[in-house]
Amino acid sequence: MRDLIRSGEDAGRFLSRSVVSVDDVDWLPPVPHPGKICCVAMNNSASNERKISAPDHPAYFLKPPSCLIGHRHPIKIRSYYGSVHPEPELAVVIGKLSKDLEAIDALDHVFGYTVFNDITGNGMRAEDMFHYWALYADSNTEGKLERREQHLSYAARYKGSDTFGSMGPVLVTTDEVANPDDLDVFCTLNSERIAEDSTRYYNYKVAEVISFISQFQTLEAGDVISCGTAFRPSKNRKSIHHTNFQNTQGLVEVTISGIGTLVNSIEIEDKPIGNWRLP
Amino acid sequence: MRDLIRSGEDAGRFLSRSVVSVDDVDWLPPVPHPGKICCVAMNNSASNERKISAPDHPAYFLKPPSCLIGHRHPIKIRSYYGSVHPEPELAVVIGKLSKDLEAIDALDHVFGYTVFNDITGNGMRAEDMFHYWALYADSNTEGKLERREQHLSYAARYKGSDTFGSMGPVLVTTDEVANPDDLDVFCTLNSERIAEDSTRYYNYKVAEVISFISQFQTLEAGDVISCGTAFRPSKNRKSIHHTNFQNTQGLVEVTISGIGTLVNSIEIEDKPIGNWRLP
Repeated sequence: MRDLIRSGEDAGRFLSRSVVSVDDVDWLPPVPHPGKICCVAMNNSASNERKISAPDHPAYFLKPPSCLIGHRHPIKIRSYYGSVHPEPELAVVIGKLSKDLEAIDALDHVFGYTVFNDITGNGMRAEDMFHYWALYADSNTEGKLERREQHLSYAARYKGSDTFGSMGPVLVTTDEVANPDDLDVFCTLNSERIAEDSTRYYNYKVAEVISFISQFQTLEAGDVISCGTAFRPSKNRKSIHHTNFQNTQGLVEVTISGIGTLVNSIEIEDKPIGNWRLP
Repeated sequence: MRDLIRSGEDAGRFLSRSVVSVDDVDWLPPVPHPGKICCVAMNNSASNERKISAPDHPAYFLKPPSCLIGHRHPIKIRSYYGSVHPEPELAVVIGKLSKDLEAIDALDHVFGYTVFNDITGNGMRAEDMFHYWALYADSNTEGKLERREQHLSYAARYKGSDTFGSMGPVLVTTDEVANPDDLDVFCTLNSERIAEDSTRYYNYKVAEVISFISQFQTLEAGDVISCGTAFRPSKNRKSIHHTNFQNTQGLVEVTISGIGTLVNSIEIEDKPIGNWRLP
């Protein structure tokens, strides 16, 4: 898929005319091995009232390609992960090598859109934090250091554990999506709505997210950018934050209008953590 | 290189007997496109006295493959990045598909070792932080949410900008490295020492780091794990924390005993940030 995207060829040429039952398909992630997966943090205006301080630009983290699963594949949860919840998001697949894009040009560099479930171990999130005295060069005195009290947290474990990135079922090319900034997003857990939202509530528009990241990092054909969680609670007041896959298994579904519905089962793996300390 | 590692073939078979001048070589990263690059945070015992609170296990973040450069390639710094410094580290290249490794077996899954310069934009680090009220399911009352004051920070920009990962010059196979937990590490800036350290001061041993990550994430042939910064200041009391590539260009070198010396020039790119906001 990366080679196809990179080639710039009309993807329609590769369409099969033969009919296949959806039940006979093994649904892999539409881009099984992206070069990188960038995910924007707290990009929903519904999170703004909970921010005490926050950056005035998109902040983002990476998920590893090894965490990806496709539609109908199980999300595997181990008891030692602690609390885990789903995060429904719109993801962009980059179409060509891109650096220093202006926002007004950014959507021209998109190959297509897909549904992303940014599964998040908020139990592990609370563990992987440091409160510490950071050292900075003292700007007033050459050779002196200044200590600044800082909080840092690290996302690779709580965002990147195996099966924590579900993507699909399909990759929809841009000609089919009139406006990525106005797509309805729903999430259900065992058929009960836990999010009813829209990409129109993203603080930073899709083009702004792509453009911002490209000021720092080269985007390559097949790279994935997940634009932020669409988590507004449903009318019945249930939300993703009420959800803990340790307590509730079954089926989680994410739907984005015009793209599709991504379904995954939740499985508990009864496996204790191994002996990672040396004797 | 990933295919070679994955094949399990004796890498020595591919050795060229012809002599090439080092000046005629374009030094790419030894693994140009790893599946993922995991980097351990604050793994040096010299950082322990600055920790107010910290996890009791390795915490780690990801760098994207797109940030990698090889030996003798320039580190490119833009003025809008703010302060940037080097971080000298030992990196492991994984030899085969690995999951749930016990620490005592972990080194058997290593293909080789290389030198890693985990270039860090500590200016951007200070910007990409959130202080906010996180929502958690209330464990006492079904359907209720609890608000917890939390600090989160996101590393993809300050750790993953283009050229922020220098790796090489060479990948040394495990038969040449008797003990990865006892290697001297030096860093110099324009020939002045800014770190004199050893991997023996890592809080978590190399095998423990690999084993811990594998409890959560499948490691694939060619994946890179950088084990933490060896930053003890030199005898002249200069440190990486005094360094800001915005103010000092020239050559940065990282040496690990038995592996090699990784040299990169520092270049300022005179490029303002693009218009990433939509009109």
